Formats: sequence, structure tokens, C-alpha cells
Amino acid sequence: MSRVRLGVAMGDPCGIGPEITARAFEALADSSDCDLIAVGDRSALERALEVVGSGLEINVLQDFQAPLTPGKLNLVDVPATWDEIPPWGKVSPEAGEVSIRSVEVATRAALDGEIDAIVTGPINKEAIWASGCEHLGHTELLGALTGVTSQDTMFVVRKTHKADHHLRVFFATRHVSVRRAIEQLTPELVEQSILRSAIALETLGIQQPRIALSALNPHGGENGAFGTEEIDVLAPAVSRAKSKGIDVVGPIPADSVFHQGLEGRFDGVIALFHDQGHIATKTYDFHGTISMTVGLPILRTSVDHGTAFDIAGSGKADPGTLLSAIRAALDYAHAVPNLRRQYSVVPVVS
Amino acid sequence: MSRVRLGVAMGDPCGIGPEITARAFEALADSSDCDLIAVGDRSALERALEVVGSGLEINVLQDFQAPLTPGKLNLVDVPATWDEIPPWGKVSPEAGEVSIRSVEVATRAALDGEIDAIVTGPINKEAIWASGCEHLGHTELLGALTGVTSQDTMFVVRKTHKADHHLRVFFATRHVSVRRAIEQLTPELVEQSILRSAIALETLGIQQPRIALSALNPHGGENGAFGTEEIDVLAPAVSRAKSKGIDVVGPIPADSVFHQGLEGRFDGVIALFHDQGHIATKTYDFHGTISMTVGLPILRTSVDHGTAFDIAGSGKADPGTLLSAIRAALDYAHAVPNLRRQYSVVPVVS
Repeated sequence: MSRVRLGVAMGDPCGIGPEITARAFEALADSSDCDLIAVGDRSALERALEVVGSGLEINVLQDFQAPLTPGKLNLVDVPATWDEIPPWGKVSPEAGEVSIRSVEVATRAALDGEIDAIVTGPINKEAIWASGCEHLGHTELLGALTGVTSQDTMFVVRKTHKADHHLRVFFATRHVSVRRAIEQLTPELVEQSILRSAIALETLGIQQPRIALSALNPHGGENGAFGTEEIDVLAPAVSRAKSKGIDVVGPIPADSVFHQGLEGRFDGVIALFHDQGHIATKTYDFHGTISMTVGLPILRTSVDHGTAFDIAGSGKADPGTLLSAIRAALDYAHAVPNLRRQYSVVPVVS
Repeated sequence: MSRVRLGVAMGDPCGIGPEITARAFEALADSSDCDLIAVGDRSALERALEVVGSGLEINVLQDFQAPLTPGKLNLVDVPATWDEIPPWGKVSPEAGEVSIRSVEVATRAALDGEIDAIVTGPINKEAIWASGCEHLGHTELLGALTGVTSQDTMFVVRKTHKADHHLRVFFATRHVSVRRAIEQLTPELVEQSILRSAIALETLGIQQPRIALSALNPHGGENGAFGTEEIDVLAPAVSRAKSKGIDVVGPIPADSVFHQGLEGRFDGVIALFHDQGHIATKTYDFHGTISMTVGLPILRTSVDHGTAFDIAGSGKADPGTLLSAIRAALDYAHAVPNLRRQYSVVPVVS
């Protein structure tokens, strides 16, 4: 394919987003396989460039289709509404507003085919809520922007024990307590999670994906001695999904299944609750774990860390996760036509 | 200290224990810092040497204090009671019996100061129960042999992000379902876990150990939005332990705390349930994760994997974890006098 064009929404201007954007763009300035376009407020990016001591100059683009200037930091300016830029680390409604608007602008460009994918930096939930945004976070916002209601989070770890193999982790439950997550586990819910994961992987270009379902309890419950969810919920869900032609195994004890995924045995591993998948990926490779929203008609990757208000403006922030998110977007950019086809586009923004 | 002398109980003769023992002893044959003594049935070890194609010769020692023959595989023979050695991968009462007796012999030698530490290979629970052993596994057996009733499991990962720093993980609950583990969490239980972990680390020679308590829920419960155990149970437990002079922080979200432990911020991390700590360590370094029983008056490390009956006898078994367990025993051998002092010795075997 031709050069991949990515829009990087910088995240909250008062967090580490602009800093890590500046550093990542500097690191990739000579990259020959992609065109990177920052999306956000120009003054926030200028402040970040100073903090990181970068000599990169900003080149403001008229739109996403404008030719880029090599060697410069190409930006689609999304001006904030503040009179004066708020200090680093401050929860600011104007910062929240422009961080959301930057995502909207980038998403629209992706929907319109002007860029191949969007990569998002960290937003601050308090700030976006203070600005009047009604969404819980990026995932819900992107769903609303693209007319999708069943988007899922997939974590990607690019460096595994096998060359050219990624560990990809899906989540059967979301932001709820562990108690509540266990209550939510039903054969129907887990089967749906398996089916959605299989479709997501196929849409990303993985033929006949091999999927593994994690167990919940120690040793996978040891035949019911340490819990019965494996027998009552998980095994039936695997059977049902298999009967629909899915190549899925499990439940496999959670302390093995992610390792086996890293070894290349599976294309996707389904975690049963938030921390099960988060512990596995982030302990293995904290800065290499990135998030992708699947089920959208666009390709979107993201850092999974927060705004780190405590160190924002210090120049200490590590751009590693943003670089991984950018590289993951490049890895999967070939799947953009599939994503458009599979996840029908019904944008609700005008 | 002088050369460290280790007894390696080979585990179940029909599992991968003898094979990985043969391989590990071969790998360490030229090691200058330790004397390795295998403990188990001679015929089982001979069969394993053939399988792995080792040219090592066995040298049977009269007892643990006998001089070793360099370049040979030194063995304290613990003869099995079978007429004929059972096939690979078979659950055999005689195999179970000799695997337990080997641990007893090695433990006695450690209690008597004839060896500095014991390292244990994998036993098969069905086999030991078939032999009449009443213990759940190694940990309970070792407790009974040494007169201790409050032993804990500590996982050790030796290769971390910081030189000479180990990730050490303790467990607040044991082999129970996740539901039951959550029910078991009380401020008292968690406080006790923190105190016991601190004593264990100090006894292993870590002055003023820095301890972190993992959270249970996503984002550490996010102020109660995703669960209240952090507020009701974990924070109070940390406060209580702090008031007793323990350097403990938390609860820290589980997807960060183990990474921070790997970075060197903590000497010990307390996992709340079995898989929380298992996922973190084994996904990070499957073959480098070893188990140590703390609270015993002897030093004991172990592989954490099973007998792998499916591949036993094929020569495919990876000795990595056993090598890690041996190296960990060497790392902590300096603490043996402390362990003896701290955990009073009341052996119940005669």
C-alpha cells in the first residue's frame, strides 16, 4: 500500500500528551513508511516542544489532505477556546473541550478517508466532563462519532516470543468490580465475546484466528475444587462458539494462557475481567501495551496510560507507549478497507 | 560463605522432574559456586539421563556429607519400592511414595545442616495421594516436616528491569476460587499478610523492606466506582501495618504494581489472590518464575510447574525453571542462619 497517513490526537493539553507527541514525532521524523499529522491546539504543542527541548518546527496544514513538509512537525490546528493556556497538570474545561474536539476532527478525517488511522493520546476524564462531554471516555465517544454501539477494546503487545506475532487480548467484561464481573459472566456473554473477537481478528486480516479463553479460578478451577465457573459458564461458552465454527480453546488457566499467547499459539486471548488482561500485558511490557478499539469502521489505536498530571511539563514523560500505538496503527493499516466494510458506517456527527 | 550445598529432590519419577534434573546438573556441571546433590531413585535418574542423551555418570553418595565427585552427577539414592519402574506419564503410587520420601530425606538433611537448601522438582498430587500421603502438596508436607503451620509461598522473578533486584510476590489468599478469595479478604487477614511478608523479607536479609499491596478492582476501584474493597478492606489494612512500622504502600492498581516491582520500587508485592500474582510473574517470565516457601526454618525453592506427564520421557522438557530455582537458592543461601533463628525448628518426623 502507499504511505500510511496517521492523525495523532494529542490528548489533554495540560497532561503529558503534547510532550510525548513531540518526542514521538521527533523519533519518527525520518520514518519513510508513514505521514504523521498531529491534531490539537498549536500553542499546547509549542509549549511541549519547548519542554522537551525539541528543535522541530511546526508546519500548520490547511487540512488533512495538504502536502506535508518533511522534517517539520505537521499539525492540523484545533484551536482551544481559552484566553490563556492553563498551567500543566490543571483540570481545565477548555483543555478537556479541545482534547475531545481533536478526536472528533481526526475521527471525521478517518471516516472520510483522508487519513488511514487515528492514534489518540491521553485525555483527562474530569476535564472532559467539566467541558460538558457526556461520554465516559474515548471508547464511548468514538462509538458515538461512528454510529457504533458494540465496540470492544483489544490490547496489543507487539514484541512477543515469536517473530511477527502479536499478543492480542480481548475483555469479556469492562469497568466493573471483580465481584460484578464474575456475576456478569454467563455462557451467552462469553460466547458473544468469543464471536466478536473472532470477527474482529478476521477483519484485521487474520484468517481462521485461533482464540483462547482464559479461566477464572486457580488451575482453571481444578475440576470444580476451586470454583465452578469453568464448568458452568466457560466450557459451555467454548462449546457453543466451536459449534459455530470458531477455532477456540479453553478455559486455559490464566497463568498459562497469556504466556502461550506470547509464544504464538493463539491470535487472540480473551480475558474475563479488566485486570486479568491488564496485569498480563502491562507486567510483561508496560510501555509496549497499546489499546485498539475494534468494532469501529475506522482504525484507532491509543496509549493506555493516563495524562500523568504529576509529571506533565517536566519533560520526563516516556513516549514509548505512543510510539507503540503509532507502530501498531501502521501494522494494521492494511485492514482499513475491511474495517470499513465490516463495521457499517453510520456517523451521527454532522 | 563457603560453597553452597544444595539437595535437589527430583520429583515424580514418571514426570519431567528427573529429565530436567539431568539437564540442569549438566548445565551446572562446571559451576564453581555450588555443590549439587540429586535426591531420588537411581533407576529413575538413569532412565532420564538416557532420554536427554546425557553422558553424565551417576556417583552415589553414602550420605549428604560425603565428598562429591566433580564432573559426575552426585546422587543420594532414595530407592523406590516398585518391582519395575513405571512408564513415563503414569500415575503410580510407588512413584508418588518415592517423590515424597525424597523430599523428606532432603528436608531432614537441611534441618540437620548437612545441606544449605533444598530445591524441589514437580510431584504429582494424584500419585502422592495414591501412595497414602495426606498432604495437599509440597507446602503442607514441608510444614509438617519442619513443625511449622504458617508457611507462605513467595514467588521470585530474578531478572527484572533493575540489576540485582528481584520481584518477590506474596499471596494474601491461597487455592480457593476468586469469589471465595474476595470473601476471605478482611483488614485483619491482609494486615497479617503484610506483617508476615515483612518478616519474611527481613529474614531473607532485606533491611527495612518496601512492600506494596495490590488493589483488587480496575484502577484500584476508582474511589469506589468499581468496587469498595480498596476502601473497606485494603486501605485500612495498609494503615494498620504502617502503624506497626512497616514500610508499605497501596492499594496500587494491579496493572501497575507488579511493573513497579520489576522496576525496583518494592522489595515485595502482595497479590490478593492466586492468579493475580501468577499471571503477573508467569506472563512476564514463565521459566524464570520460581516458588520459595517462607516461614520454614530451612531454605526451600521450587519449580512452580507440574509433572507435565504429556511430554515426560520425550526429552523436550525445559530445565529453565529448575535452573532458576537452583540459582534462587544460591542467591538466598546467606539467609539460612536467619531462617533457622526466625522460624523455630520443631521437627515432627523422627
